[in-house]
Amino acid sequence: MSEPYGPKWNEPAIRVLMMPRDTNAHGTIFGGVILSYIDQAGAIEARRQGSRLMVTVSMDKIVFHEPVFVGDLVSFWTETIRIGNTSITVKVVVEAIRGNDPSSKVLVTDAQVVYVNVGDDRKPAPFRMKNEE
Amino acid sequence: MSEPYGPKWNEPAIRVLMMPRDTNAHGTIFGGVILSYIDQAGAIEARRQGSRLMVTVSMDKIVFHEPVFVGDLVSFWTETIRIGNTSITVKVVVEAIRGNDPSSKVLVTDAQVVYVNVGDDRKPAPFRMKNEE
Amino acid sequence: MSEPYGPKWNEPAIRVLMMPRDTNAHGTIFGGVILSYIDQAGAIEARRQGSRLMVTVSMDKIVFHEPVFVGDLVSFWTETIRIGNTSITVKVVVEAIRGNDPSSKVLVTDAQVVYVNVGDDRKPAPFRMKNEE
Amino acid sequence: MSEPYGPKWNEPAIRVLMMPRDTNAHGTIFGGVILSYIDQAGAIEARRQGSRLMVTVSMDKIVFHEPVFVGDLVSFWTETIRIGNTSITVKVVVEAIRGNDPSSKVLVTDAQVVYVNVGDDRKPAPFRMKNEE
Amino acid sequence: MSEPYGPKWNEPAIRVLMMPRDTNAHGTIFGGVILSYIDQAGAIEARRQGSRLMVTVSMDKIVFHEPVFVGDLVSFWTETIRIGNTSITVKVVVEAIRGNDPSSKVLVTDAQVVYVNVGDDRKPAPFRMKNEE
Amino acid sequence: MSEPYGPKWNEPAIRVLMMPRDTNAHGTIFGGVILSYIDQAGAIEARRQGSRLMVTVSMDKIVFHEPVFVGDLVSFWTETIRIGNTSITVKVVVEAIRGNDPSSKVLVTDAQVVYVNVGDDRKPAPFRMKNEE
Repeated sequence: MSEPYGPKWNEPAIRVLMMPRDTNAHGTIFGGVILSYIDQAGAIEARRQGSRLMVTVSMDKIVFHEPVFVGDLVSFWTETIRIGNTSITVKVVVEAIRGNDPSSKVLVTDAQVVYVNVGDDRKPAPFRMKNEE
Repeated sequence: MSEPYGPKWNEPAIRVLMMPRDTNAHGTIFGGVILSYIDQAGAIEARRQGSRLMVTVSMDKIVFHEPVFVGDLVSFWTETIRIGNTSITVKVVVEAIRGNDPSSKVLVTDAQVVYVNVGDDRKPAPFRMKNEE
Repeated sequence: MSEPYGPKWNEPAIRVLMMPRDTNAHGTIFGGVILSYIDQAGAIEARRQGSRLMVTVSMDKIVFHEPVFVGDLVSFWTETIRIGNTSITVKVVVEAIRGNDPSSKVLVTDAQVVYVNVGDDRKPAPFRMKNEE
Repeated sequence: MSEPYGPKWNEPAIRVLMMPRDTNAHGTIFGGVILSYIDQAGAIEARRQGSRLMVTVSMDKIVFHEPVFVGDLVSFWTETIRIGNTSITVKVVVEAIRGNDPSSKVLVTDAQVVYVNVGDDRKPAPFRMKNEE
Repeated sequence: MSEPYGPKWNEPAIRVLMMPRDTNAHGTIFGGVILSYIDQAGAIEARRQGSRLMVTVSMDKIVFHEPVFVGDLVSFWTETIRIGNTSITVKVVVEAIRGNDPSSKVLVTDAQVVYVNVGDDRKPAPFRMKNEE
Repeated sequence: MSEPYGPKWNEPAIRVLMMPRDTNAHGTIFGGVILSYIDQAGAIEARRQGSRLMVTVSMDKIVFHEPVFVGDLVSFWTETIRIGNTSITVKVVVEAIRGNDPSSKVLVTDAQVVYVNVGDDRKPAPFRMKNEE
């Protein structure tokens, strides 16, 4: 069962402009906002691979390398690492283009998130391969 | 002064997943949410072209071709149409990938937005070409 | 079929106080917030004229004359321009009372928005005149 | 010192369309959203009377007569009841136009809110009469 | 019918960190945010006492003793004051731990909120005692 | 340097009621909302231990055991695991009380988050022990 999920997506799954409403009490974007989008981005990748409904199962250890500021444009790049019977492992790479210097890009963090594909009854269901449709 | 702003960006300026909090009273995404992101996307393109601070001046007539639903992944593609002395005209194309069918893409709308580049005093300031930096 | 929709409403369709959560990265209210309320205000006018469920079809070119700041009280005045078989054209005038000077009013922008009246199946449906009820 | 604050305002201080994001777990608009706008509306009235910066001091007992639903257009009418040396008492009347029947209006609640006018040091400061400006 | 609702809860019903998105135009947390959480906290207490679905009926006069700032940790402590046939009266005490001095606690306000227990038809229904379940 | 940070806190760092605005496209609370509060809760614990300003450095692998629904009351319990020279490791346990059954509690997830204490220049600064104040 080699290569069931095709080439890596060369577009970000999510890309958002950081707004003042996303700041913490100290004026920077708080980590939770980033974690929140990582979860969304991974779910979008899972959907690209054929999942209709998925539940977040786990997220591997993540390390924040750089802070994120208001005005930064933050991209969430995804890649499918593994597709099991009912689960999928997605890598999410988070990159920020600084608002005050659009030519600079920094790596904010990366994460591995595992989702389980579920049916309408919310119980694990066999993952539907995209190319089986 | 031909081609001052280089090739079109082959990545979306903004890409977001539509959430229940973006719905109107009838359960679809309300037009204002889309208009809101169009404005942001155009500003990001203006920044790519060298503007540090810009103000939205006008938006040409826009037509909504398709509704947007919760779960749709909506992309805002931008292209610089014209750079004047202190202003920039950006085209924004809005495309939705349906949540219940990731293989279908629909054109939601497109728009032309004009921004004026301003200085810290919020008065119009000569547009700084990216390749002059 | 003269005067199907009666006198102009002498109260704003929407009036809101601009809060810090509505600001862009530069501390002013970003254009998208205003566009968002224009869309809502027009829909409220359409409802006043008898529409139960409507979809935004288009918005004419709009020009922003003045910026909006946190603390401003922003009013959206509406007027029905034309009622067609299944559509309605609404003019929305946006006016701001400055937070630091309640006696000053500025015209922010005006817009013309077209909505199509739809049935529960979301298909265009004859506009139900208010005075036919 | 009769009539220091002129005639009652015949326009709502705030008027908003209730959206799905304002609902509680049971699908109706939760009371806190209404309380939140009452506080804002009263502050707008205080500003109309000449206050630049005010702090909410108290709110009299309020009774909710009718529930509010998604799609309702809710208006907050204000009236100045009393202006003291550094404080102002505002009455706020909350009225809803039902989304599914624009011809029906219901009284949701009314409230009396007291604000104290403060200076930049956030200490009580003499109320500046509007007609003294 | 002594002691129908047991001992007071020694944990807050709600505890939240105040974020920049909760500020008013002057940079402090606006009163409406606090009122909003008071309503939620009282409803949680009502649920602890056996109500499945409740509607806010009234809130007694409340006085704000201290302002709340971004970064404050605000706790809403609840206590059931009275349980009637279909209604419940809850006292909510609001306390803030200052963000810049975690050892200081201030009393922000307290409130008494009355809820009526309703059935699925949203009509008042006999309050189901917790210990009758 | 045994026991520098005293007894475990027997109150939740954060406790919130899940609202419709926190749902994903499928009607359950999306994982990102929980991750977001975990980050906040850990920061509150760091502050209890004497940090004025902290930056999230990493979060260990986390596993979601149970879904969270609208109406659930979710508590974030914290415990300081380790205080280093400039960093602190906090364990956050997330527990949900189901909205439709207040007597049932489920363990949603737990996490270990590391923060580094920073000075006003945002560079790592020695952790100020609470009992040194």
